[in-house]
Amino acid sequence: MLKFWEDFFLKNTPSKEAVVQLESLKSFTTEHKHKNSRIALVTSGGTIVPLERNTVRFVDNFSAGTRGSISAEYFLKHGYAVVFMYRPKTLEPFARHFSTLSLLDTLEEKSDLICVKKEKLQVVKNALTGYSKAKGENKLHYLTFTTLSDYLWLLREVSQCLSVFGKDALLYLAAAVSDFYLPTELMPVHKIESSGGPPTITLEIVPKMLKPLVNLWAPDAYVVSFKLETDVSRLIDKCKAAIKNYSHKMVIGNMLQTRRHKVVLVDCSSVNEITAREEEEIEEKIVKELCDKHQQFIDM
Amino acid sequence: MLKFWEDFFLKNTPSKEAVVQLESLKSFTTEHKHKNSRIALVTSGGTIVPLERNTVRFVDNFSAGTRGSISAEYFLKHGYAVVFMYRPKTLEPFARHFSTLSLLDTLEEKSDLICVKKEKLQVVKNALTGYSKAKGENKLHYLTFTTLSDYLWLLREVSQCLSVFGKDALLYLAAAVSDFYLPTELMPVHKIESSGGPPTITLEIVPKMLKPLVNLWAPDAYVVSFKLETDVSRLIDKCKAAIKNYSHKMVIGNMLQTRRHKVVLVDCSSVNEITAREEEEIEEKIVKELCDKHQQFIDM
Repeated sequence: MLKFWEDFFLKNTPSKEAVVQLESLKSFTTEHKHKNSRIALVTSGGTIVPLERNTVRFVDNFSAGTRGSISAEYFLKHGYAVVFMYRPKTLEPFARHFSTLSLLDTLEEKSDLICVKKEKLQVVKNALTGYSKAKGENKLHYLTFTTLSDYLWLLREVSQCLSVFGKDALLYLAAAVSDFYLPTELMPVHKIESSGGPPTITLEIVPKMLKPLVNLWAPDAYVVSFKLETDVSRLIDKCKAAIKNYSHKMVIGNMLQTRRHKVVLVDCSSVNEITAREEEEIEEKIVKELCDKHQQFIDM
Repeated sequence: MLKFWEDFFLKNTPSKEAVVQLESLKSFTTEHKHKNSRIALVTSGGTIVPLERNTVRFVDNFSAGTRGSISAEYFLKHGYAVVFMYRPKTLEPFARHFSTLSLLDTLEEKSDLICVKKEKLQVVKNALTGYSKAKGENKLHYLTFTTLSDYLWLLREVSQCLSVFGKDALLYLAAAVSDFYLPTELMPVHKIESSGGPPTITLEIVPKMLKPLVNLWAPDAYVVSFKLETDVSRLIDKCKAAIKNYSHKMVIGNMLQTRRHKVVLVDCSSVNEITAREEEEIEEKIVKELCDKHQQFIDM
């Protein structure tokens, strides 16, 4: 009998855009395996669940990619090679400091050149330096997904690809992944008509891929997952239940309303709250803590 | 008895972010009324429909903002003042030529400066010139929305605000607006739980705001709406039905699959197909045609 994830991947095939990305990923991981790099997969942004085959409408998960893009910068600072697997149009490491419009606003013509205005020089320089370093050392590799099925397919492929790093791989699953979806065979081909009256959409539950990921795809990796809640009374219990269920290394719990300055790190033996002040990036503290834990795990 | 739109606005109140934008809009329109400018409202990007009050999930409409952002540039070229009402993270006029990442990639350090690389100079210069001109002449005003209810509320306010321009106002409603929504009183407060089994979501039909817009909010304006279909056999009939229903000036019909190079312009007396080659921007032709029609309408 097929396992539930095998069944999902049989029925929900990846897009061409997802598949073509594997080639360049492989040369990235080969290079860093040779260099004995530590490697982090950072997933970021929300997945969509199409409601029609010719997709006009979809259910989306709120995520600007703030947590993932900031964290990726700090993993790079700690010397990791980073696979940044994200939803296009959500924030990217270094680029996150600007919108395209704000970046256009920093530019001015100067004789034959176009240059960054003096008053914006320092902030652009900081971002550009980090970005150029990561690119120059080939430490930052981008992968993109939009739909839930592409996300899950890439997650499996990337995990398997990183499994050769053994304990040196860290998976930081910050993407906001849909819990519900509409299987391809239940989707209407065309745009849902408003003349048909109010539509009722019944979604199915997405299989929990953390189970095969931890047991089969990357069994030696240090795996970190996230839990986002809006009801504080459920948060810690849900984090503990996840650790118990999936036997991975760490769950980071956060509340929608306070996620920028408070998180809890829950592992099999402890609950550790991390807070940050307004002017701090809490991801700096989270990533520091995880790098320490990852080191202890490697040393075990 | 309340009209359906009054009922909608009573039950679905705008966010603070929507309301605070009206002040600066008013000084923009006052300036251009004094200057006797023609003015175009261009709406762009898709609206979201939240599924929870503490919004984690929402139904979204596919729209990158391509049509709206390109068209806004051409309305500016034709001398219009433009109110660009769009969804953040979708494309913006001029900035659309770059992603933040691609713009970072064009920059390099040069002694004490950060400058655009020589090989990218022309493309950045073209965008920057158009952008600086529009800003310098205060011809381009941005408004943003994310949710359906903010979009509809802003649409009403902006239309009423532009009604003082009489026939000199053109409304180009290119945003992809949800046909369905979940009324606030039916939303769960917290994130939908997967432990509760597969959720069923029943949506309601969004009231057609084109009716009060054309009859009450901006009765003298030249109003252009869009129809996006995935089934070609329905397209022209649906465009004609919309013109008949709402008595506005023009419907632009397009197919999801071919929208970049083919549209039909349908008004009360004609159906006019416009096509563009791969290297052309079809919006240049659409806007040219609309400016001509708008001129004829003003001269009538």
